[in-house]
Amino acid sequence: MPFRIQIRFRDEASEVSTSSDIDRITRELQGRIADYQDHFSRVFAQYFEDLQRNFDGPAESRFTARSLELLGHLSLRGGKRQRVAFLYEAARLVTAEPVPGLDEAALSIELLQTHLLVHDDIIDDAPTRRGGPSTYYAYREEFPQHPQTALGLALLAGDLAAFLSLQVLLDSGLPVALRHALVDVQTRAAAATFVGQMFDLERDFPQIPSEELLNSVSDYKASRSSALAPIQLGLLVAGEDPVEHAETLRRYALMFGISGQMCDDYLSLFGDERVTGKPNTADVRDGRRTYAIRAVLATATETERVRIESILGRPDCTAADIDCLRDIAQHHRVDRELRSKMHRYAELACREAAGWRDCWHDDAVTFFERVPVWGVERTL
Amino acid sequence: MPFRIQIRFRDEASEVSTSSDIDRITRELQGRIADYQDHFSRVFAQYFEDLQRNFDGPAESRFTARSLELLGHLSLRGGKRQRVAFLYEAARLVTAEPVPGLDEAALSIELLQTHLLVHDDIIDDAPTRRGGPSTYYAYREEFPQHPQTALGLALLAGDLAAFLSLQVLLDSGLPVALRHALVDVQTRAAAATFVGQMFDLERDFPQIPSEELLNSVSDYKASRSSALAPIQLGLLVAGEDPVEHAETLRRYALMFGISGQMCDDYLSLFGDERVTGKPNTADVRDGRRTYAIRAVLATATETERVRIESILGRPDCTAADIDCLRDIAQHHRVDRELRSKMHRYAELACREAAGWRDCWHDDAVTFFERVPVWGVERTL
Repeated sequence: MPFRIQIRFRDEASEVSTSSDIDRITRELQGRIADYQDHFSRVFAQYFEDLQRNFDGPAESRFTARSLELLGHLSLRGGKRQRVAFLYEAARLVTAEPVPGLDEAALSIELLQTHLLVHDDIIDDAPTRRGGPSTYYAYREEFPQHPQTALGLALLAGDLAAFLSLQVLLDSGLPVALRHALVDVQTRAAAATFVGQMFDLERDFPQIPSEELLNSVSDYKASRSSALAPIQLGLLVAGEDPVEHAETLRRYALMFGISGQMCDDYLSLFGDERVTGKPNTADVRDGRRTYAIRAVLATATETERVRIESILGRPDCTAADIDCLRDIAQHHRVDRELRSKMHRYAELACREAAGWRDCWHDDAVTFFERVPVWGVERTL
Repeated sequence: MPFRIQIRFRDEASEVSTSSDIDRITRELQGRIADYQDHFSRVFAQYFEDLQRNFDGPAESRFTARSLELLGHLSLRGGKRQRVAFLYEAARLVTAEPVPGLDEAALSIELLQTHLLVHDDIIDDAPTRRGGPSTYYAYREEFPQHPQTALGLALLAGDLAAFLSLQVLLDSGLPVALRHALVDVQTRAAAATFVGQMFDLERDFPQIPSEELLNSVSDYKASRSSALAPIQLGLLVAGEDPVEHAETLRRYALMFGISGQMCDDYLSLFGDERVTGKPNTADVRDGRRTYAIRAVLATATETERVRIESILGRPDCTAADIDCLRDIAQHHRVDRELRSKMHRYAELACREAAGWRDCWHDDAVTFFERVPVWGVERTL
């Protein structure tokens, strides 16, 4: 692992030269992210505890209370909280002092994420999420005789999470202009994500989508809400206007997002199911033209392509089918090419962040510089 | 019709004494609402035209453009625009001068309504809405082989409409504190509505819900977003703080909402399908314990109740079943009792509005005073 990081950082040999330096940086990065996770877990748990008590809903409605409970379960099961780390570090770009409003911004980010996951699992008809039942399937379990009620409740719980995500900002007690700016960021990020998700569904219809198209999907679907918005929110809370840095932030988020999406897509097809927690058949069975599957289709011979298209979207797709697809991919070195590409995008993000040294705190700049490559490396 | 209005207004004999007065008031009311409808239709059509041009989405995504188109179709097919009339009249409570921001507030209200309708038709699996296909079924028509894609696109289009509803306020160029207050009203109204919709689903599970429970459902599901929020927004835009009138506005919205919901529920069961455009079997088939069905259940004999329960929720429920239910209802005078109740609630709303004369413009107060009873009368 350190060796590979050393290769990735080879262009910055003057800064990072020994494997013990890399170990130290990795430990530091992990330590900081873990601290944010710990802190935010407590904040989020407290939020849901308060919500159950103070929520403006009819006291006699069990369904309302249950929806808050299920939103809490899904939200508190976590995930990596990468967005939260981005938010806190973005504030540290500006100041090392604690600033009020960061926790509320973090809650907003993760509540919007909860909204997206709840609806995403309806769209994908997904039974599980974050190592537990999806909200949709939790309701299906509770209403085995009423699938339409289960669908309705899951959909409404997701809708509720979206507006709770804004309410937490509106109720933050921050200066009104700041509150307004934060809501504006989240509203745009949400709209972009829905567009990205539609575009993602569209991607699976044409024969072979271009890589540019997948980059654009990734931009709308992930980069803006997962990378750009958290950084914008962190800067805003710390008193900096992100509009003045719009271009570089957009580029950073885009490169980071593409790299991360490529990595996810790669792992879905080539990774170890025991590590990813997701069957390798999933993307193929759903006919998803991910970066990985697109790359195989684009380099395959005509015969191979016909074979791949016959597997894609088949509900009964087997492990042997996946092996066949992987063989074709490895024959054309698609897996190596993809690993190399995701590193290149991660490095582009790193270099973008390196340019922030002129105006922002060194310590946090280093975080944004390191995290894209580290994100790719730690999962491969 | 005038006669019945006269009866309703009997406590205000000094103000409204002749049938020609009533006719004049009715014509005035209709004229004002029609003017708002006309004006808003143009504003809304222009909004969707601009949206297609300026939307921040990937140019190459047909799915994105199509979602905006379908949201436009549903939105522009209209409905009564009662909320819009409430908004404009609420501003006129404060000032007869035109005030900037009213159109943006109207757009926000109707975009949120579009969001609610799109998701509601997924929840109810409803093929039609406002005399055309529901967004969900428009997509199902376009993707006959991919029902899950159709579901996903409809869900995402609905999500998008919700955030467009806020974006239009954020982009309004109004003073930032006002923008913030408007967003706050809409966010709370949306959250209340989701809760009301969950509560509405819950209502259909217990044996016989109490009337108080149905009032609470109506409060959350309809009153707040359809009556309270438009009035709050209109006052805010006109420079008045609705918080100072919170109690009377809440009571007005609640009474108006209950009366309207009772009226809808009554018509669903007892009304003329050719007028309502909705089969009389719909509520019964879906097992919906509406005000009307609850009232029949609550007054029926044990034998009758068993018979009604055997019909409720049956997908193959027939016109003959409905006739049987109606016979039971009429035997117990449930239909008359319900008509009388919805009038009483409408009158309570009228009286609440009458109290606004002390602080607000007479002309607009009269509107809010007249509209609840008129709303009931014109549909019965």
